[in-house]
Amino acid sequence: MTKRINNFSAGPAILPVEVLEEARENMLSLGDTGIGIMEHSHRGKAFIAVLEEVEANCRKLANISDDYSILFLQGGASSQFFMIPMNFLQPDQTADYLVTGVWAKKAIEQAQRYGKTHTAASSKDRNFCYIPKTATYSDNPAYVHFTSNNTIYGTQWGTEPEVPAGSTLICDASSDIFCRPIDVSKYDLIYAGAQKNLGPSGVTLVIMKKELIERGNKEIPEMLQYRTHAENDSCYNTPPTFGIYIMGLVFKWILNQGGLKGVGEANQEKANVLYRFLEQSKLFKSTADVDSRSLMNIPFVTGNEELDKAFISAATKAGFDGLKGHRSVGGMRASIYNAFPKSGVEELVRFMSDFEAKQA
Amino acid sequence: MTKRINNFSAGPAILPVEVLEEARENMLSLGDTGIGIMEHSHRGKAFIAVLEEVEANCRKLANISDDYSILFLQGGASSQFFMIPMNFLQPDQTADYLVTGVWAKKAIEQAQRYGKTHTAASSKDRNFCYIPKTATYSDNPAYVHFTSNNTIYGTQWGTEPEVPAGSTLICDASSDIFCRPIDVSKYDLIYAGAQKNLGPSGVTLVIMKKELIERGNKEIPEMLQYRTHAENDSCYNTPPTFGIYIMGLVFKWILNQGGLKGVGEANQEKANVLYRFLEQSKLFKSTADVDSRSLMNIPFVTGNEELDKAFISAATKAGFDGLKGHRSVGGMRASIYNAFPKSGVEELVRFMSDFEAKQA
Repeated sequence: MTKRINNFSAGPAILPVEVLEEARENMLSLGDTGIGIMEHSHRGKAFIAVLEEVEANCRKLANISDDYSILFLQGGASSQFFMIPMNFLQPDQTADYLVTGVWAKKAIEQAQRYGKTHTAASSKDRNFCYIPKTATYSDNPAYVHFTSNNTIYGTQWGTEPEVPAGSTLICDASSDIFCRPIDVSKYDLIYAGAQKNLGPSGVTLVIMKKELIERGNKEIPEMLQYRTHAENDSCYNTPPTFGIYIMGLVFKWILNQGGLKGVGEANQEKANVLYRFLEQSKLFKSTADVDSRSLMNIPFVTGNEELDKAFISAATKAGFDGLKGHRSVGGMRASIYNAFPKSGVEELVRFMSDFEAKQA
Repeated sequence: MTKRINNFSAGPAILPVEVLEEARENMLSLGDTGIGIMEHSHRGKAFIAVLEEVEANCRKLANISDDYSILFLQGGASSQFFMIPMNFLQPDQTADYLVTGVWAKKAIEQAQRYGKTHTAASSKDRNFCYIPKTATYSDNPAYVHFTSNNTIYGTQWGTEPEVPAGSTLICDASSDIFCRPIDVSKYDLIYAGAQKNLGPSGVTLVIMKKELIERGNKEIPEMLQYRTHAENDSCYNTPPTFGIYIMGLVFKWILNQGGLKGVGEANQEKANVLYRFLEQSKLFKSTADVDSRSLMNIPFVTGNEELDKAFISAATKAGFDGLKGHRSVGGMRASIYNAFPKSGVEELVRFMSDFEAKQA
């Protein structure tokens, strides 16, 4: 067996070893069924049991009430960008977006096709290195949309934005879902592509108030109506069964870590290891404002592009993979999602410390 | 290791053991990368190499020229049902559909939202138990759409339908793609959900003439435009990396079986075993017309619902899974896709023969 290396990829990203091992064991036969997990009909007893357990564990993890439907869709968060306004924004209405990065910008751009949009807040003035403290909402927005964690810039909302009473709150939580406790009752719709904190790419978790589902546009293709998927328990057409199965294993793994409280504390500890180092380093600097820093993605730079390159090259050779930063921030980025072990962060800090010492 | 049973599921369906074994080996580390196949970034070298190999092997398998793009999309064939008219049917145009079953009906229904539709042929009069011999096309249809294999009814086009010269020919090949040699140059667009002959659910193979891609509607969400995916090598957003990887293993497996010619001959032999038995049986009858019979899905009935139930129950106990027919045909259905071994069909025939003897 090849030794596993430290995988700092921003997504698809590291998954818990226990999850991968269990998937491996069920590849040729799910339990004692004699049929591999990928080969089971989505209409058969074995997969229906998987699906029911995944949903039950999702509800348990985040204490999600029956007022919400839990859907497993395809097409990634990028498909939610257009499905949301297609369903919930009429031409004479305005949707408010909190623009904290490229993905939030992509979301608002899709809404412009269906109705009016309003940028209630933006951190574009300083290349999205912070979370705005205030927002100015339009009168009676159709909904307010925000991105809870900004993968590229390493910023994260500390808590939900304050929105006018009665607002419909929609959140793209792709890169920090279930990284800590969450009060789902504050949201009308939470969506997340699985490939960062939940599983493989190709399945999107959607947690959605049933009341909102009913408000959706009925004049669009059935596949693009949330009600279609809610009414059919995500089996209107064949769902991505393997991705859903893996997501279920990840939910069980989180429950075994002490649930969202447990992973939240572990994530804070992990992030602290790297942030503490960056705070005292004379070579490496964090790029995000201190009060906006993410638990999940930590970009850092030396301020010298050549040196950044040399560091990434040396780190890659030493088994630290996926550290190259996004081109819009440059430098490095360590993505340390739920499944990333604290020991890996400690190893990185030791490596950075050694690198810094050699430069001095 | 649990013994694998005979899995006759219509989809998700049986995959080659060699494919499952290779996937299992790469679950915690793809080759010597130290990162599991699901955990690799879609922008990283390792996955890009996978993607390039999958495309190259797809082209090799079906001799697909550079006039075609090969795309890996999400959302299943059901998403193609609306994406096709959304892209290629204008309100004043007519699209022609050959209606040979429920899935073809679902496809034409989606087109009605965007323009006019014309049923050029239908086999509804006899519950879709045959492939129509003739068709009457509209003047200058935007495209002609057919379903090459009808999973529920066990019928399959022997070859492409004859269409007026210059027609744009579109095919839903979800349940028989790559089951035998195909002349791709006769088509403008072939699409197939992976979960029958190609891999797990959650990825759709689209083989599409580049000239058609350029004709697509530009006023719709980027995610729903084929050009977006073609211009970005299916990586506009994060693609379903694991599903694409498995599809690649299946392509290699088919090449090792002698390519499409090899699997085509094997499929014919396999189907013959069951059809020959059905032809002489006094208890079990095939439901499809002889000249329309499918290589992939073989429905059969006793003519007595109670006896059908008793047979399915006994067969399930004996390790023949997924034999229950679709409710619209009733009785039994054996789906014997590429990966289904001839020995399994022979075992089924022995079991059916014994069952029949006991009834006599």
